[in-house]
Amino acid sequence: MDALDSLAARLAPDRVRRDPAEVQPRARDLSALALLAEVRGDEPVTAAAVVLPESTEEVAAVLSWARETGTPIVPRGGGSGVSGGAGAVAGGVVLDLSRMDRVVEVDAVSRTVEVQAGIRGDVLEAALAAAGLTTGHYPQSIELSTVGGWIAASSAGQASTGYGAIEDLVLGLTVVLAGGAVVRLKPVPRSAAGPDLRRLFIGSEGTMGVVTEAVLACRPRPPGYAWAGFAFPSFEPCVEAARGIQSAGVDPMVVRGYDEADATLAFGRLGHTGGSAAIVGFASDAPGLDARLAETAVRATAAGGRGLGPAFGRHWWVHRNDAVDLYRRIMGPERLFGPGTVVDTMEVAAVWSRVPELYRRVREALLGGAEIVGCHLSHVYPAGSSLYFTFLVRGADDREVEGRYLATWEGAVLACLEAGGTITHHHGVGRLKARFMAGELGDEGLEVLRAVKRALDPTGILNPGVLVP
Amino acid sequence: MDALDSLAARLAPDRVRRDPAEVQPRARDLSALALLAEVRGDEPVTAAAVVLPESTEEVAAVLSWARETGTPIVPRGGGSGVSGGAGAVAGGVVLDLSRMDRVVEVDAVSRTVEVQAGIRGDVLEAALAAAGLTTGHYPQSIELSTVGGWIAASSAGQASTGYGAIEDLVLGLTVVLAGGAVVRLKPVPRSAAGPDLRRLFIGSEGTMGVVTEAVLACRPRPPGYAWAGFAFPSFEPCVEAARGIQSAGVDPMVVRGYDEADATLAFGRLGHTGGSAAIVGFASDAPGLDARLAETAVRATAAGGRGLGPAFGRHWWVHRNDAVDLYRRIMGPERLFGPGTVVDTMEVAAVWSRVPELYRRVREALLGGAEIVGCHLSHVYPAGSSLYFTFLVRGADDREVEGRYLATWEGAVLACLEAGGTITHHHGVGRLKARFMAGELGDEGLEVLRAVKRALDPTGILNPGVLVP
Repeated sequence: MDALDSLAARLAPDRVRRDPAEVQPRARDLSALALLAEVRGDEPVTAAAVVLPESTEEVAAVLSWARETGTPIVPRGGGSGVSGGAGAVAGGVVLDLSRMDRVVEVDAVSRTVEVQAGIRGDVLEAALAAAGLTTGHYPQSIELSTVGGWIAASSAGQASTGYGAIEDLVLGLTVVLAGGAVVRLKPVPRSAAGPDLRRLFIGSEGTMGVVTEAVLACRPRPPGYAWAGFAFPSFEPCVEAARGIQSAGVDPMVVRGYDEADATLAFGRLGHTGGSAAIVGFASDAPGLDARLAETAVRATAAGGRGLGPAFGRHWWVHRNDAVDLYRRIMGPERLFGPGTVVDTMEVAAVWSRVPELYRRVREALLGGAEIVGCHLSHVYPAGSSLYFTFLVRGADDREVEGRYLATWEGAVLACLEAGGTITHHHGVGRLKARFMAGELGDEGLEVLRAVKRALDPTGILNPGVLVP
Repeated sequence: MDALDSLAARLAPDRVRRDPAEVQPRARDLSALALLAEVRGDEPVTAAAVVLPESTEEVAAVLSWARETGTPIVPRGGGSGVSGGAGAVAGGVVLDLSRMDRVVEVDAVSRTVEVQAGIRGDVLEAALAAAGLTTGHYPQSIELSTVGGWIAASSAGQASTGYGAIEDLVLGLTVVLAGGAVVRLKPVPRSAAGPDLRRLFIGSEGTMGVVTEAVLACRPRPPGYAWAGFAFPSFEPCVEAARGIQSAGVDPMVVRGYDEADATLAFGRLGHTGGSAAIVGFASDAPGLDARLAETAVRATAAGGRGLGPAFGRHWWVHRNDAVDLYRRIMGPERLFGPGTVVDTMEVAAVWSRVPELYRRVREALLGGAEIVGCHLSHVYPAGSSLYFTFLVRGADDREVEGRYLATWEGAVLACLEAGGTITHHHGVGRLKARFMAGELGDEGLEVLRAVKRALDPTGILNPGVLVP
């Protein structure tokens, strides 16, 4: 009996699959390098098997076996990550949580939902809509990604300005540690009972444990959204407007500001012909909505903006997830990617006083190797904002485009660090950015991360090569 | 040269004090058992010395020395904790951070403030007021406690419903580890670069590292507060009103609901004669304030409340920190404490569906040994609320009151755990509650906490006996 047979013997029938037709499609995520490899037909890394558990207990059995046998485990949700966090490891096992897709319980009084980690975002939202609730967590990948993936990759949804990001929603958490111990952290709204252990696993990308269940905070589902839109001569006053609106006490759900290139991409078909643009969205039943919209306009015009009405915001809301179709087309017969082309995004963040420099430096670095560079801010905080860059790199052939992409990427990440930004706002680190973690955390901070990793996974079986360099 | 001489040699002159007149007053915090010991004249535990560092580098020198010599270190801020987290250890060193009390920089654009950890809350707020800013972090202890203490004990201020608790304010953090390594986590509004390492130290009560500097998020300082007040026949509809108001999109700064005993204590002099009461506060310049107040009233009356106008809220706002004077009188010549009397508080929290049972069970447990039991909710979240109990225990003599207090306390903590609550919302664990941490986190969760502690402080010199049982 080989090791995989001994694993199969600990699980219900059919959980362990070795057929390459099942293993290979789970060997990559949607990161640019993975897509490039896919479209040019590279053989993926060969995992030994994929395991499809249906319960926390089965995940515990897998991790107990993995510790005993020294087998690397790559946890996998929807596979929609863009940082290489779910790339297979040769000879390892892909732990695919997609069958753990149940809503366990909706607590209508507490407005919470208990789910298994493999549930997909759109499925969860459909179940909550029936109860008049929403998590408010709307990543662009919502039709592809899972709650467990959101937690692992430190996700932030498009309405996080109003609803908070994933760490604000996770109340209870069940995690299986390397070796199989099951940690169950009960759902509480807030606690001072020591460091928040949930935060060890949020953003850990499967390196500290495997999230199998969660209790998420929900909100009443608003009947709709009300939108304001503004035009600016350039991006800098647009950023200043976002900063002002954030501090105005108007409590928007969505604040987005686009530089000239991104505004043209986003709103060109609505007649936008130049300059920067911003949209601000509110729950349509927010008490005092008219006063909130009026104050929003005051702040935007004080920064040099001109009112555009609700059309841009409405348009964005309807079309905000078209990129999911784009993903599907990338992977489908159209092959939008190369071999001579790479499209990627880089999402960074900084405190407000550093945002203009962060924008300038990262953009300049990207323009060193990319043809098209657009940027928008999409998540605002009292102290700062994210910046989301999209860029396209071309090359004459595979080698050239990959080399140019990596050099461009590295230059932009280093520019971000020099400007005082964080190298990722919500896409996570994965394999792509692990080598920059010393720059992000400092040598001593990285040593803390490594010490925690050694404490929780001393033999290093959980997602090796990801996050922790 | 003894060990303390070797420490003194690494620091600027006068940093190390061995005079009992300086050491003894720093041997206790404001926990009930410490106060009881104080008023009956017990000798405090004898620490070897107090050290008064003035920089992160000096703290690093102390912790390097402590690791080499195996000396226990008890970090100390304002000493206002109520859970025994800053009680001296025999032969150990009290690391008093009160001289690290500077505002390093106000960033008016980012609305952030960089401070040394020993700065007191009222001093910080006075400095921020000059810049038109506030942290919004107003614990009752604000005139006694420090930023470092807030971070260490996982503090939540009285307006946390609007401004967030301390974890929502900490953007950047400098921490010295056991052994002297200095971790500097730069200020960012949000990051997905791995688990948030700041959260290892928030709530760690000096057991994982010593916080020496922080960058906090601020907000524009509102010109004032607008208040609503409501009366209810009992506490249960008051809780229901708070739940409704929290979800109404009105974004209040303060929501407080008092049971009958606490309402009488709080508002008796304003003519409140029975039943439960609630107050709701808004920034007076909130856009749409009238509509927010109107919707608040709709939710309160739907739950069975009757409008009272702003008087209760205004009164509470003015008198909210009178307890600080009480602390001073407790420790002064009046000796409000025993020897035959203990007054204490217990702050717990749960999701909304469990709040009524949590209230009932903890109250019953406290009434088993206490004479007066009052309760209010003071921090509300989408998914739940805190409950803050005040109780008074009497006994014929020292031994009787201490025994009865401990038995009452234990019964109430166990009742809290059985009701699904967390054993502390914002006072922390200290020595008082460490033995309940397995009940709080589960055995496997506690083992995670212990593993992290071993990883960061392998020889256990940081605040031994606190938090981690």
